[in-house]
Amino acid sequence: MKELFLLDPKTVFLNHGSFGACPKPVFEKYQSYQLQLENQPVKYFVQDVALMLGKSRAKLADFLNVDVENLAFVNNATTAVNLIANSLNVGVGEEVLACNHEYGACSRMWNRLAERRKFSYREHEVQLPLYSDEDFVENFWADVRPETKVIFLSHITSTSALILPVAEICKRAKAQGILTIIDGAHAPGQIPLDLSEIPCDYYTGNCHKWMLSAKGSAFLYVSEDEKKNLHPQIISWGTDLQSTGDTALAAELEYQGTRDFAAFLSVSDAIDFHAEFNWNEVLQQKRHLLYKVRTIFSNIFETAPIATPEFMPMMYAHQLPDTWNPIVLKQKLLEDFNIEIPVTSVGTQNFLRISVQGYTSFDDIEKLANALELIKQQFV
Amino acid sequence: MKELFLLDPKTVFLNHGSFGACPKPVFEKYQSYQLQLENQPVKYFVQDVALMLGKSRAKLADFLNVDVENLAFVNNATTAVNLIANSLNVGVGEEVLACNHEYGACSRMWNRLAERRKFSYREHEVQLPLYSDEDFVENFWADVRPETKVIFLSHITSTSALILPVAEICKRAKAQGILTIIDGAHAPGQIPLDLSEIPCDYYTGNCHKWMLSAKGSAFLYVSEDEKKNLHPQIISWGTDLQSTGDTALAAELEYQGTRDFAAFLSVSDAIDFHAEFNWNEVLQQKRHLLYKVRTIFSNIFETAPIATPEFMPMMYAHQLPDTWNPIVLKQKLLEDFNIEIPVTSVGTQNFLRISVQGYTSFDDIEKLANALELIKQQFV
Repeated sequence: MKELFLLDPKTVFLNHGSFGACPKPVFEKYQSYQLQLENQPVKYFVQDVALMLGKSRAKLADFLNVDVENLAFVNNATTAVNLIANSLNVGVGEEVLACNHEYGACSRMWNRLAERRKFSYREHEVQLPLYSDEDFVENFWADVRPETKVIFLSHITSTSALILPVAEICKRAKAQGILTIIDGAHAPGQIPLDLSEIPCDYYTGNCHKWMLSAKGSAFLYVSEDEKKNLHPQIISWGTDLQSTGDTALAAELEYQGTRDFAAFLSVSDAIDFHAEFNWNEVLQQKRHLLYKVRTIFSNIFETAPIATPEFMPMMYAHQLPDTWNPIVLKQKLLEDFNIEIPVTSVGTQNFLRISVQGYTSFDDIEKLANALELIKQQFV
Repeated sequence: MKELFLLDPKTVFLNHGSFGACPKPVFEKYQSYQLQLENQPVKYFVQDVALMLGKSRAKLADFLNVDVENLAFVNNATTAVNLIANSLNVGVGEEVLACNHEYGACSRMWNRLAERRKFSYREHEVQLPLYSDEDFVENFWADVRPETKVIFLSHITSTSALILPVAEICKRAKAQGILTIIDGAHAPGQIPLDLSEIPCDYYTGNCHKWMLSAKGSAFLYVSEDEKKNLHPQIISWGTDLQSTGDTALAAELEYQGTRDFAAFLSVSDAIDFHAEFNWNEVLQQKRHLLYKVRTIFSNIFETAPIATPEFMPMMYAHQLPDTWNPIVLKQKLLEDFNIEIPVTSVGTQNFLRISVQGYTSFDDIEKLANALELIKQQFV
């Protein structure tokens, strides 16, 4: 499987989660679109690209099981979350509720926006360890207040690699008229994802992580009810120049002046790649490696997992004891052992987070385990 | 020169102005950055790209003669104008003044924003024909009112291909405390551009048009005074994760989650390309073709130019008489003669707009002249 990717064979690459990795056949198609553009730029932008985007968007809509009219390409989940947040009608005395495992850039955005727009942003503290979805839902819901107008929640937390029961949260929120925004940055392609089963108002997911498309490809789903409330941040020709293949939503959101659409187009090829190689099955066959890592980490770090395996996607984050310096650990793994693996954090708690992708081998895991043993002997 | 570009040799390509065209050596470097990314995505995004962007940004700052601290990459001029407009502090009873030759997508944006934010957007009607910069300045300035808080003006109009005397307008505006935003979408690389000579608050220009970089590369210049008033539309890690090579402005504006930075990096290569081939000289040597076109169009359409030659960049727009159907003309030129050339419009007045680039030949102009003669015989 490693030969299918462009990753440097000298690096033990255990951080698929941060930026993904694009397989060769998808990458080649991606660059071929850029070449096609240069062949006749006017024809490409005025005629061809709308049809090609329409095809890619329709395939993505099938993949996610949503209506294509409610879907638009964006560069990444961060961009989508900013777009949604800037369109929200929340003000003084009202709050956006999230949890304390959200992605740092999103927390930063919410805090800045809350300050400027005079609403409140609050993070529910997740009770660890997590034993069941019901636990999470009950605890989270006990923290919802009358002033909670919006719930913002990660589908898979970036910091702690936990699948959160967002469908159930959205169901409860809908019943109470609370708007829901799901940050699925890490979800599509990593876990089975059927958006028709998650009654949210907004959902965003990256395609360049686990769906394996080129960098800068992600989607925004918006419910039919919320469409009218969404203000594009970059207004261009929009529906005034709507081309064949465009939906109204795509015309308003995707055309932001001249830019390269190749990453969006590569989503179609990434979906083909998934089908051709039966990639879901490939991932399932690698899942035993995650259980192995779980045991290895528990033994080496002498701490218990923060959640039962049902919360585990194709990433696993294990908490580091205070005796392990996270910066030194990260640096030693990379510099002394050529192992690329991130240390993440929730507040003062640090985690070592591994990603298992189709190209991850048993040998990679062994190299990591041996490196950790050596580091432990050296400096703990 | 044509061999340096990737353009289809079967098309007479006379519309460089809309989307530009990227030379082969620049395009190859552009795609090599994307390949470099895939080799080790984490190293690339966490370490390498900031240094590479820093280098490209510094080279661009030299090219434009501005301080690199006041410069950031954006995807295109439309994006920059939206960013600026959304940061402005204008409200009820105040107005943004532009002219009626602005780019349609920008006019649309201003009109939408004005409606939502309750300020006024007004377009000064340019008096044609233009005989001198002084004429334009005096006429424009006579239209400035006490409620004019912001002036938005194209450096080169997209619709009519006129160089407007923006430096003088900015000088007058500065003296009266009016904020100035210059849309230089078509300027960098097409005309000599020294930003230190234009005392504006904001200037944006595309690099993928006449600077010949890859698609989706442009810049925003912001004056030192205005920096504090500029709110990034996409908030991500910003200065919280400022890397070596970043300026504070770039950290806040350029990092918008995971996306492809290759087009921004290609700006450095495009500047090298300009130097290596002495591209300004290449353009100057093609300038006689524009004068030739001016005469040809005047004879065929039997209308006079709308401005004296001092207003002419490397594009020329000639007004079509009412007897020429603009849609049919555009279609015939493309379908019957394989000539790609746009018809633009200001209100009900249509223009045929030609671009002369380094790859444009005398033969291309002759083909256009012959085609127009034939079309004239057929349907006028």
